[in-house]
Amino acid sequence: MNSLRKVTLGLAGFGTVGGGLVEILQKNKAELEARAGCQFVLKTVVVRDPSRVRAVALPEGTRLSTSLSDVTDDPDIDIAVELMGGIEPPRSFILRALEQGKHVVTANKALLAEAGEELFRLAGKKGVRLLYEASVAGGIPVIQTLKESLAGNRIQSVEGILNGTSNYILSEMSSNGKDFATALADAQARGYAEADPSLDIDGHDTAHKLVLLIRLAFGVDYPYSQMPVQGIRNMDSMDIEFAREFGYRVKLLGRVRRTEKGLEAGVFPVLVRHTYLLARVGGAFNAIRIEGNAIGSLFLHGLGAGALPTGSAVMSDIVAAARGTMPFNTGFAAPLHTADIVPPADAVSSYYVRFMIKDQPGVLHALTGDLAEFGVSIAQAIQKGERDDGVPLVLMLHAARVQDVQSALDKIAARDFLNAPAVAYRVMD
Amino acid sequence: MNSLRKVTLGLAGFGTVGGGLVEILQKNKAELEARAGCQFVLKTVVVRDPSRVRAVALPEGTRLSTSLSDVTDDPDIDIAVELMGGIEPPRSFILRALEQGKHVVTANKALLAEAGEELFRLAGKKGVRLLYEASVAGGIPVIQTLKESLAGNRIQSVEGILNGTSNYILSEMSSNGKDFATALADAQARGYAEADPSLDIDGHDTAHKLVLLIRLAFGVDYPYSQMPVQGIRNMDSMDIEFAREFGYRVKLLGRVRRTEKGLEAGVFPVLVRHTYLLARVGGAFNAIRIEGNAIGSLFLHGLGAGALPTGSAVMSDIVAAARGTMPFNTGFAAPLHTADIVPPADAVSSYYVRFMIKDQPGVLHALTGDLAEFGVSIAQAIQKGERDDGVPLVLMLHAARVQDVQSALDKIAARDFLNAPAVAYRVMD
Repeated sequence: MNSLRKVTLGLAGFGTVGGGLVEILQKNKAELEARAGCQFVLKTVVVRDPSRVRAVALPEGTRLSTSLSDVTDDPDIDIAVELMGGIEPPRSFILRALEQGKHVVTANKALLAEAGEELFRLAGKKGVRLLYEASVAGGIPVIQTLKESLAGNRIQSVEGILNGTSNYILSEMSSNGKDFATALADAQARGYAEADPSLDIDGHDTAHKLVLLIRLAFGVDYPYSQMPVQGIRNMDSMDIEFAREFGYRVKLLGRVRRTEKGLEAGVFPVLVRHTYLLARVGGAFNAIRIEGNAIGSLFLHGLGAGALPTGSAVMSDIVAAARGTMPFNTGFAAPLHTADIVPPADAVSSYYVRFMIKDQPGVLHALTGDLAEFGVSIAQAIQKGERDDGVPLVLMLHAARVQDVQSALDKIAARDFLNAPAVAYRVMD
Repeated sequence: MNSLRKVTLGLAGFGTVGGGLVEILQKNKAELEARAGCQFVLKTVVVRDPSRVRAVALPEGTRLSTSLSDVTDDPDIDIAVELMGGIEPPRSFILRALEQGKHVVTANKALLAEAGEELFRLAGKKGVRLLYEASVAGGIPVIQTLKESLAGNRIQSVEGILNGTSNYILSEMSSNGKDFATALADAQARGYAEADPSLDIDGHDTAHKLVLLIRLAFGVDYPYSQMPVQGIRNMDSMDIEFAREFGYRVKLLGRVRRTEKGLEAGVFPVLVRHTYLLARVGGAFNAIRIEGNAIGSLFLHGLGAGALPTGSAVMSDIVAAARGTMPFNTGFAAPLHTADIVPPADAVSSYYVRFMIKDQPGVLHALTGDLAEFGVSIAQAIQKGERDDGVPLVLMLHAARVQDVQSALDKIAARDFLNAPAVAYRVMD
């Protein structure tokens, strides 16, 4: 029935992110086909224990296997997706898949940080793609941004909040006055932190990601073993409070900057001035600030973990590999049709409205009556003292149909108590 | 001498952005060759008036012309760059270049919004790239992000501060209490606003960009003439102040969201709650917030205009077109070497340090003496009342060599007046 070219996927690892990917493949099937110009078929999923019950069901026709060679050595499979985590067996799996001429998509920051060189060398030799957007900062497209969008820049520095667990802990300590142990237990209860949280809170996860960002920003291999790393284990609430008194928030940052003597890099808890965007990154969010000699500064912010945000990044790599050499100028395979448009009058919005009213009895009564007649209700109001041009009456209106607000304002305008036309602006909900 | 493959460029338009591009081509030549794996040669620049003095000198060997066909019809030229602005002659120039099988890079939002369909159709037919990262939000990679990085998402909404001039005016009104006319005159004096600022302040520039983002996010053509547009002309300071009283900032937003009945889109001044990242976008910055059903929300922030930031976006498109089909997995053409690393002890940082000192005479004197001995100076200090575990003394230290701070702390640690090891965190400058 479907005449689209088929692109066949093999997946190794079916945990949180693998489940997210499978969910996206099914839920966004129509969007994916329109964007990639092909149909994705998930042929094989390799797991350790096929009897385990999964949160996400496999598509019909997908087979479960316990043998990695069912992906790497299957000539039907175009793209091998590695979502197992850890160094081995992922390293051997990826090497074998590349050797077989397959594109590989992985989220494995530890592997790429500690053994990336040989993988990239082999991928280059075979002329295939080894893509890893999901390995840093979940859905935030920082890999793609450094690899392509900032290609015209000499990068000066990269600073990132790259570990959601640590950021959640620090945010809870800072905003809700928790101590470290309570905030950590909380993160574990919410599923952010592993039972053994050391990779997160001791900074190693951030360091792995920083090695990847350095490679992309500066075109060099930074040996993971040489990275200075200080985590946030047992941070004292007292220091979070003192930092606030000086106007700072404490964040676990991966940082690198170019100096005349080479790269200055490391992972540290850092006091960040509260007015900076990086200081505003709360909860389990991630963010990256990049400085380049052409772009100036660029700031990216989004969800750094989770099944769907990370699955989104894996999916973008799969689409990139599947698109191949076609130009995809609009981002879609086929010519576009015209949008279905909601008539502007039927849109719904909250509103700020200011009237300049005459100081006479009954005005507020009449005005609120006109609003009510069109079903428009008031959330908040300020009335100020009289000025030369009248009395300012400001209303924040609950969300309503744009036409209804307009009709009420038209009726009010026809009355005799306004000194000037009403001013109306939308409010973001 | 240089054995790299040559990629030949032809440029039409040599104003602000054209000058930025030429500066980047020269200043970042080494980076560009490493990233693109080729050498860029700017063969021809077409201008209206070749006698005009330019801020940026052309590279040796580049010829100035007044005829657009010297780019479109020159078989040497691989990539045609259109930075003239306006509908004609850019439309004819781009159509001709595509017809000749050249890749085209443009920053022309008005053209792509009002006549994009025929250009994309021809580029698709010819199988060449028509790239336009610089057309929206200067250096911020929002085109690439929507086209590739979010390909696995069903996009729900896009909201952007897309016009730096308007945002500068609103920021000045909000933060510095200026009225509209003064803020506009100020923007003009700084070169942000044109002599005729209507495209900016009446919202049409934002609307052009929004049409482009809608095409990328939803895969549909949104007729520009059907976009509801409200600008910020003559906005009253009073409303900015009332909005602040309610906890909002006023921003000119381009907005679109998917509803069951179709797309709800428009350009409006909108009250944005002050805690939102969009409310924090100041001065001439741009920002975009995208919501997708996999990624959740993504926020991008950077410089939306200017020679180098916009030139950065143009350059990224040129690199993308030049790279062709090679995988470029690391973002660089050649295998990577190992980084030059600054020894961590030689890094320079400001510090927050907390001591728990004994309440006895001479402590502060000895402690500050030990810091001074290693050239470490104090920016700020807080000393709090005694607690069970001692008196907290917190110092903010000026930037110093990490080893010097460490040596001073080691010396202090050997004294007898600390109740606990000192706590030290870096401070972002």
